[in-house]
Amino acid sequence: MNDFIYHNPVKVYFGKDQLCHVGEELSKFGKRVLLTYGGGSIKKIGLYDKVKSEVKKSGLELFELSGIQPNPRIDSVRKGVQICKDKKIDVLLAVGGGSTLDATKYMAAGACVDFDPWDFFSKWAPIEKALPVITIPTLAATGSEMNGGGVISNPETKEKIGRGSEVLLPKVSFLDPTNTFTVNSYHTACGSVDIMSHIIEVYFTTEPDLHMLDTIMEGLMRTVIKYAPIALKEPDNYEARANLMWTSSWAINGFIDGGKKHEWSCHPMEHELSAIYDIIHGHGLALLTPRWLEYCLDENTVEKYYQFGTNVFDIDPNIDTMNVAKKSIEMLADFFFNTLGLEDTFSKVGIQEKDFSFMAKRACGGGTIKGFKPLGQKDIEEIFRMCL
Amino acid sequence: MNDFIYHNPVKVYFGKDQLCHVGEELSKFGKRVLLTYGGGSIKKIGLYDKVKSEVKKSGLELFELSGIQPNPRIDSVRKGVQICKDKKIDVLLAVGGGSTLDATKYMAAGACVDFDPWDFFSKWAPIEKALPVITIPTLAATGSEMNGGGVISNPETKEKIGRGSEVLLPKVSFLDPTNTFTVNSYHTACGSVDIMSHIIEVYFTTEPDLHMLDTIMEGLMRTVIKYAPIALKEPDNYEARANLMWTSSWAINGFIDGGKKHEWSCHPMEHELSAIYDIIHGHGLALLTPRWLEYCLDENTVEKYYQFGTNVFDIDPNIDTMNVAKKSIEMLADFFFNTLGLEDTFSKVGIQEKDFSFMAKRACGGGTIKGFKPLGQKDIEEIFRMCL
Repeated sequence: MNDFIYHNPVKVYFGKDQLCHVGEELSKFGKRVLLTYGGGSIKKIGLYDKVKSEVKKSGLELFELSGIQPNPRIDSVRKGVQICKDKKIDVLLAVGGGSTLDATKYMAAGACVDFDPWDFFSKWAPIEKALPVITIPTLAATGSEMNGGGVISNPETKEKIGRGSEVLLPKVSFLDPTNTFTVNSYHTACGSVDIMSHIIEVYFTTEPDLHMLDTIMEGLMRTVIKYAPIALKEPDNYEARANLMWTSSWAINGFIDGGKKHEWSCHPMEHELSAIYDIIHGHGLALLTPRWLEYCLDENTVEKYYQFGTNVFDIDPNIDTMNVAKKSIEMLADFFFNTLGLEDTFSKVGIQEKDFSFMAKRACGGGTIKGFKPLGQKDIEEIFRMCL
Repeated sequence: MNDFIYHNPVKVYFGKDQLCHVGEELSKFGKRVLLTYGGGSIKKIGLYDKVKSEVKKSGLELFELSGIQPNPRIDSVRKGVQICKDKKIDVLLAVGGGSTLDATKYMAAGACVDFDPWDFFSKWAPIEKALPVITIPTLAATGSEMNGGGVISNPETKEKIGRGSEVLLPKVSFLDPTNTFTVNSYHTACGSVDIMSHIIEVYFTTEPDLHMLDTIMEGLMRTVIKYAPIALKEPDNYEARANLMWTSSWAINGFIDGGKKHEWSCHPMEHELSAIYDIIHGHGLALLTPRWLEYCLDENTVEKYYQFGTNVFDIDPNIDTMNVAKKSIEMLADFFFNTLGLEDTFSKVGIQEKDFSFMAKRACGGGTIKGFKPLGQKDIEEIFRMCL
């Protein structure tokens, strides 16, 4: 069991009547606010007007950057950095999905340095300072509202790279489940897979770990399995949206890691898919995760699957271990592809075998992903083939 | 489901090789450190020397206050306040059990005001400022290391009052499971009951709540049930001590509340027992909790017991609801009195019927505890009688 540090100072306002505090929280950091958002869905749901009204009420000066796309591009980040510098922005307010939140964090960091923000990814330039960021997520998925991570794409180099720093932790986040009522079925499904994957990447380990955190992860996974289908059927079910939203934050805010040092496996593989095909991240994860689990299953790893199957999917603990393991993978795939209704093969979403070798090589950085089971290029290509 | 704010900025170093960071963390707040501790058990386990050496290594000036007792007294707080003021202390370092941590928080608050620190309790004087506190807990129980609460006794008035404030949150806590290896069976048992009780007080509710948090609470309770007996049998089992320690922090750091507004029931009842009889808080809770659960069980509340019984104690879900409920109380009592080996009646620990009326009246403040089931003086007296 490794030593670890847990520190998550993000202040969260959770619930449907909390936006009245956004002005007071922004004001703590200054007068000049940059509001960032995506394609305008926040206007459709009325959130844009509400936010603007609250900000104005507090006498703050508002600047705007819209048009941040899914799989956010470094170009959006550059634009934001320029505005921060030109307009002497004090605090950024990111309203939208994980993409808007991630891009905004790197605007906040880019505003404090003289070099191009892509250097944070291409050259691993130090992230030592950032402007304060406040977030209002409109999707339960990436957990970006409660962590210091972000993933940025560079279409020129066809790269998609994730990185984090404690200075990128939002100061405050407003989690209002009603802001996710209009998320359509497909994105609700993809977001739910993303949450599941954040937990699965940590849960499946051969390292000695804190059992207490395993019980927490099992509870979080059961919560997704219970409420994602309800949110699909009843998009404005507050209870379902609230459970998904708070679970998404806790799936990736540092708590469940508890000193586990192993690398994630499905996320780096998926980033290659969405870097090249621009598919939705959660869908890529749904395609990869059951096949990856199948690929990693052997006599050494089977115990963890048994725990997963019996505690998360209530599989009869008296069935023999290997069969529980296999059944747990089937049930996970069934959840992704039948319950959540996601297409179940690479072919169906247009991912082609010709790119496997290139993507696999880049996923492991030309070496090995030191995850649940070490994966080199050939292993990853094999997992890709299982997804065809 | 109520709106809520979650904000817990405490930085936690968890593990056995983290004490090397204590000097660097203290230094962030100044030069003059007041080390507070209890009866000297930290000397026996070598922690006192280690802490002192780390503090000295960082060139800090160290002052000391020892002798803080279980059920910490306002007198200790007053002494600490005086030292803080006289010696111009910058930061307090509390090393010990929950009592030392709680008392130290109120020294830190008292150092910032001109009035007597008992006014925080007797007059509900505002707690607006406090010196920074760093903690090193040596017991898994109160969770004081990750919250802003504290309970202080006044032997003159025979009162024991709990109160909290965000400004009392420790800045940093060092959680080293090896520091709890020498905690004896009795205190390990009482600490484990305290953890269970912090969860049970929140879990048993009739308010609509976040199911996700219920799954977390069930995981935390299962963790205590699994590891407390191991810690009793093998006091230096790192895994058991680590799981109990991290569970104790998360049982009462604000996370599991998630907007629940109801009052706690067993804690105010117990504070009257330990205010008058000076028994160990966790033992008082063990005596009260199963009887309180029995008293609150009826057709309106039975569902929560069913959930508890099936998810925490693995009682067959096909048994009828009321019988699952009754069995869950029996299993909890069995865990406290047989597995953990605690005496099971008031008579055995010397609590007498003559004080019931007085204690019951004070427990509900002469009115009603608005908890899982509202409890007035007569209800509390009845629960006390069930413990005889």
